[in-house]
Amino acid sequence: MPPRSPLAPSSTPQLPALAGVRLAARACGVRYKERTDVCLMEFAPGSAIAGVLTRSLSPSAPVDWCRQALKGGRARAILVNSGNANAFTGRLGKASVDRCVKAAAAGLKCGRGQVFIASTGVIGEPLPDARIAGALPALVADLGADRWTDAAAAIMTTDTFAKMATRTARIGGVEVRINGIAKGSGMIAPDMATMLAFVATDARLPASVLRNLLKQASERSFNCTTVDGDTSTSDTLLLVATGAGPAHARIATSNDRRLADFRAKLDDLMIDLACQVVRDGEGARKFVTIDVTGAASDTAARRIGLAIANSPLVKTAIAGADANWGRIVMAVGKAGEKADRDRLKISIGGVKVAARGQRVAGYDEAPVAAHMKGSEIAIAVDVGVGRGHARIWTCDLTHGYIDINADYRS
Amino acid sequence: MPPRSPLAPSSTPQLPALAGVRLAARACGVRYKERTDVCLMEFAPGSAIAGVLTRSLSPSAPVDWCRQALKGGRARAILVNSGNANAFTGRLGKASVDRCVKAAAAGLKCGRGQVFIASTGVIGEPLPDARIAGALPALVADLGADRWTDAAAAIMTTDTFAKMATRTARIGGVEVRINGIAKGSGMIAPDMATMLAFVATDARLPASVLRNLLKQASERSFNCTTVDGDTSTSDTLLLVATGAGPAHARIATSNDRRLADFRAKLDDLMIDLACQVVRDGEGARKFVTIDVTGAASDTAARRIGLAIANSPLVKTAIAGADANWGRIVMAVGKAGEKADRDRLKISIGGVKVAARGQRVAGYDEAPVAAHMKGSEIAIAVDVGVGRGHARIWTCDLTHGYIDINADYRS
Repeated sequence: MPPRSPLAPSSTPQLPALAGVRLAARACGVRYKERTDVCLMEFAPGSAIAGVLTRSLSPSAPVDWCRQALKGGRARAILVNSGNANAFTGRLGKASVDRCVKAAAAGLKCGRGQVFIASTGVIGEPLPDARIAGALPALVADLGADRWTDAAAAIMTTDTFAKMATRTARIGGVEVRINGIAKGSGMIAPDMATMLAFVATDARLPASVLRNLLKQASERSFNCTTVDGDTSTSDTLLLVATGAGPAHARIATSNDRRLADFRAKLDDLMIDLACQVVRDGEGARKFVTIDVTGAASDTAARRIGLAIANSPLVKTAIAGADANWGRIVMAVGKAGEKADRDRLKISIGGVKVAARGQRVAGYDEAPVAAHMKGSEIAIAVDVGVGRGHARIWTCDLTHGYIDINADYRS
Repeated sequence: MPPRSPLAPSSTPQLPALAGVRLAARACGVRYKERTDVCLMEFAPGSAIAGVLTRSLSPSAPVDWCRQALKGGRARAILVNSGNANAFTGRLGKASVDRCVKAAAAGLKCGRGQVFIASTGVIGEPLPDARIAGALPALVADLGADRWTDAAAAIMTTDTFAKMATRTARIGGVEVRINGIAKGSGMIAPDMATMLAFVATDARLPASVLRNLLKQASERSFNCTTVDGDTSTSDTLLLVATGAGPAHARIATSNDRRLADFRAKLDDLMIDLACQVVRDGEGARKFVTIDVTGAASDTAARRIGLAIANSPLVKTAIAGADANWGRIVMAVGKAGEKADRDRLKISIGGVKVAARGQRVAGYDEAPVAAHMKGSEIAIAVDVGVGRGHARIWTCDLTHGYIDINADYRS
């Protein structure tokens, strides 16, 4: 096991049971030895589901399956393995998914279209699906409501800590619960550290509402994070509503005002999970928050923020605690979005370093240099053309990243 | 001085004199001590010019100047300094350019619109232009036809070797000459290693023809290379035709068949220079050639090739001599261009590793692993949807890159 990331949260949240969800994890030897690597999540009959999947044009076989199954909007199970992504495995991969789905549907006595599959790990190697399907009876027997931590641990690959978050929210005065787990060191490592996240609530919400909530929340959370800009073949984010919690007002549409608190708490939980992924970015020593304002639109602001966050030169400067703001100017320039070079403002750690297209008069680098030595870095950029804004999270690019990735498989 | 890149060419070409071009270089102390840092290139009256400039939306003041001056299509001088990019310097930057242009125009007794300026180095610091303008009389006095090597050395920043190339070409049976110099460790380092290239010929070609030739050649050469995907604020590529060589057939349009050999030799020279820049990529230990075929168009092929070449995971795998082809699949998937996952073919070092959406039967990694241990890596990808193709050049991502960039300015 690699040492826990220095940016890991200081405390690990304990996830309470959530009505309508049971979980189990087992060591099936998919690739790793002496650790759990398969997790089964079971949902009460009638649970609704929505999902966001990788936009990669070379998606894994499980992603293909989920894309199809999500059309039904109903979920009884999510079956996840780590160690093998079942990506670029051709017909073998599809057949492996089919056998896993069949085993889970038989074990839980449900329709196959309500079983969701996610796999994360090495690309291009056939999945030893018999080890997973064979473990289904034991997984079903082990299901329990208090096994969120076991589930979060079983889906880890190069992660150095298990990622969990929980919130409560009110829908029309009734308190409901939201639990989530995630894995990944960002959307960064296609063969062993793709991003997976599973969020469940005991609220009763139809799939159409979940889709809307999830789309917005993912845009504000996972889609605003990056470790190295490499999009995985397997990224999968699923949101399940069991409806097994306390009865609350019926919600039929996503613009129902009684959803405001739930929406806010869901966004907050997903940002929490997404930032945990960034804090476990491969080799990361510094956590970076980038606020972009004054862009032509929110989308433009996000693109500019991601151009800064993905720039190897910005990331290495941060690793070296170098307040090299010229590289931020470069990244804004290459983002391809409208920006007014001669109105550009840049602050680092709350200290203004540049404005009106040049370094501020009497610029004193000392307080900025001191901020850069810390492990939580704040960058703010105003590009001077509109009202679009975005907040992006990333980490630095260090020797640790090279060490981890220069010969990962061996 | 850092040690010479292990990928540097084994021999340094000697550039012959080129009719209509004289050069000089001096140590002006712009930033560096005890080395030349300003170069003046003088062209015979009547010389035509074309240029390609950075697409960055935060271009440097010299780039702004060149964009305007190129409209005239005539050149008497190119004045270049290293050590300071004069980028993000606001009105001060523009005034610095104006003073340098004025000094050069006075020294060479030519119109200001025929003076071109390029600056490369740190971003955001005012250019000490008086040191450059003050050196103009001495530079003019020093001009000589045999100083190409001095010029190539003066424009270096983090470069570990001077980049030069020369070719001869025939236009309607008459032999003309093309010389070029470049600097940069790729389009990668915004504060000290932006890409500059200057190419001159003694052929007599109008600016409109030069523009067409240069556009095509740059698409096939510099625009097919990457070190880390960071686009500079200062990238400048200028092509000058002095018309001072032996008389040849009059060429009025770029589709004149008599240009075929010249076009081929120009492309070849520019690819040579571009690959020299990649071979001096910061921290590079391996030179990588990526051939993409079967794409929907040549543009699509280039985007796919650049997605592979810019992927930190592909680059670190190459650094580690790891034949991790799953990362190539990932990069093809994230490129956003049409590709058929189930017809994808990948070869490394000429050995087929994957076809029809999966690993080839009986795949033996040994010969591929042996190839990956070398310093010249060949990757071929066929994406199975059309006839578009492209060849891309890049280098690996190593600890050396982090060392160079994690605290460059100090």
